[in-house]
Amino acid sequence: MSYYIGIDLGATRTKFGLLNDEFKLLRYAEFNTPEFPGKKLLIQALEKQILHLREKIKFKPKAIGIGVPGLVNPEKGLVYYLVNIPGWENVYLKRRLENSLGVPVFIDNDVNVMALAELYFGRAKGKKNVLCITLGTGVGGGLILEGKLYRGTSFSAGEVGHIPLNEEGPSCNCGGKACLERYVGNRYIVEETIEKLKKGWSSPILSDLIKNDFSQLNPEILSMALKKGDPLAEAIWQNVGRRIGIVLAGVVNLLNPEMVIIGGGVAGAGEFLFKAIRQTVKERAMRIPAEKVKIVPAKLKNDAGIIGAGILAREMLKGGKR
Amino acid sequence: MSYYIGIDLGATRTKFGLLNDEFKLLRYAEFNTPEFPGKKLLIQALEKQILHLREKIKFKPKAIGIGVPGLVNPEKGLVYYLVNIPGWENVYLKRRLENSLGVPVFIDNDVNVMALAELYFGRAKGKKNVLCITLGTGVGGGLILEGKLYRGTSFSAGEVGHIPLNEEGPSCNCGGKACLERYVGNRYIVEETIEKLKKGWSSPILSDLIKNDFSQLNPEILSMALKKGDPLAEAIWQNVGRRIGIVLAGVVNLLNPEMVIIGGGVAGAGEFLFKAIRQTVKERAMRIPAEKVKIVPAKLKNDAGIIGAGILAREMLKGGKR
Repeated sequence: MSYYIGIDLGATRTKFGLLNDEFKLLRYAEFNTPEFPGKKLLIQALEKQILHLREKIKFKPKAIGIGVPGLVNPEKGLVYYLVNIPGWENVYLKRRLENSLGVPVFIDNDVNVMALAELYFGRAKGKKNVLCITLGTGVGGGLILEGKLYRGTSFSAGEVGHIPLNEEGPSCNCGGKACLERYVGNRYIVEETIEKLKKGWSSPILSDLIKNDFSQLNPEILSMALKKGDPLAEAIWQNVGRRIGIVLAGVVNLLNPEMVIIGGGVAGAGEFLFKAIRQTVKERAMRIPAEKVKIVPAKLKNDAGIIGAGILAREMLKGGKR
Repeated sequence: MSYYIGIDLGATRTKFGLLNDEFKLLRYAEFNTPEFPGKKLLIQALEKQILHLREKIKFKPKAIGIGVPGLVNPEKGLVYYLVNIPGWENVYLKRRLENSLGVPVFIDNDVNVMALAELYFGRAKGKKNVLCITLGTGVGGGLILEGKLYRGTSFSAGEVGHIPLNEEGPSCNCGGKACLERYVGNRYIVEETIEKLKKGWSSPILSDLIKNDFSQLNPEILSMALKKGDPLAEAIWQNVGRRIGIVLAGVVNLLNPEMVIIGGGVAGAGEFLFKAIRQTVKERAMRIPAEKVKIVPAKLKNDAGIIGAGILAREMLKGGKR
């Protein structure tokens, strides 16, 4: 029997799973990431939790995989930076953990890791060309092309959230302008809602839910209001879906994928959001690729990051990427 | 010694090359495509010219490759439709020519074929991830990913000209809206120039070149005026470069390619156009992929289509794609 440890390092929570070689989750652990501020404390916390999981089994795990929210070089095991976790610039995370733990460690971007999980056990199983998107604070993406994770020349491929939606528009955190994320990232959805409320849009259900306290607004509340038929919530989600659909139309024309998988918080708006996205892709993309592509919600939910990290560990170990 | 025949089927001219197995051009022939209107006459003309080239050599060619301006299924050898050549819907071109000629025939989209030529003998040689673009009447694209031609799930990948530049905008021939091609395709560049002339933009050199006859306007004249320092021509090409650059910023973020190769008529505006494109990509794309990507003119000119078609023939013959 061989074991892997999969780690889903998130800005809010870090999750650990002990997996067997069929990627079944045997043990689970987690901690709140902000409890360990700074590089040093967080690395120590990772080590401690890994050692704790290892105690439960007789043998060493064959390898450890980690998905991180940021830009990494998986070949060097180098974290260039993490989004929303300060103090992580140019950290050789692989080498540091291997030195202290004596087990092979592999790292990759969290959306790439999620794409691997969907490829092995989710909607992408048996598919060749798939775009995976996560909607949330940011808009992330991972690409499966010709049946394999496509990382790009400097491992930064997949940034569907930073495809421009317009020639000109508001500045984006990435340094660009008018990127998709700048319109449909969580805080921008909330901002648009507040603007429309201030302009006097009718919103009986949403107003009731937040009791005029704009600080209560978030995508979950907006989804709740949508399900209860609030007209403003409908307009907001319609617009989110339309904008995602326009950018996807471009990706569908460029890559002709057979599937687009969408996961993450904003996807909580469910079938209403998917309908708006699909309708827009149908209207805006070319006929042949538009007819081919299926746009579906992610199958794997909370464990996707852990399982994907375990798959990463095994794939890279097999590939001889030491 | 083995031979291939490469054919570049174009709406204006169709070019034929007899190639040796190092893809050296041994014989060349061409005709004006519109002289053979309709499917039947054009196929006969292809057959006649192929037989004529074959007479020059002792042996049968090993295979024939054809690049066509439209959407094809290379596995079935099926032409779905050709752009700007009427009467070509759902033609099994491969089977028809194989039946009459008794030689294996392979077909693909013309920009894919050009990408193959650049991969073997041009700027993409030794590169893994490259986007090839042709600028002209339309804006076409071909993708090399992981060192191989990437065709997509239904062979329609690469349509960089149909990535939306804006949320809303003018209708495009493809059925979509606000596509890049709708702004920088030849006729739209000309339209924009005429609009600006009518608005009274100062354009001493260009006005002199066209002598107030708008029908004289085309990208070649605009390039000429640019080289002589005409301010309107500069503004037009600057805007073309900026718009191409914005869409490329999205592609660079999505695919993280090491190179973008640009060929075709509009690229005649030369270094001025490339500078505007590069500047925009630098401003709008994310730092890491933007630093990686080189944006360069195509190396192969007139013979790219013939040579690429020969490469296609050999690659598909080797791949057992009979």
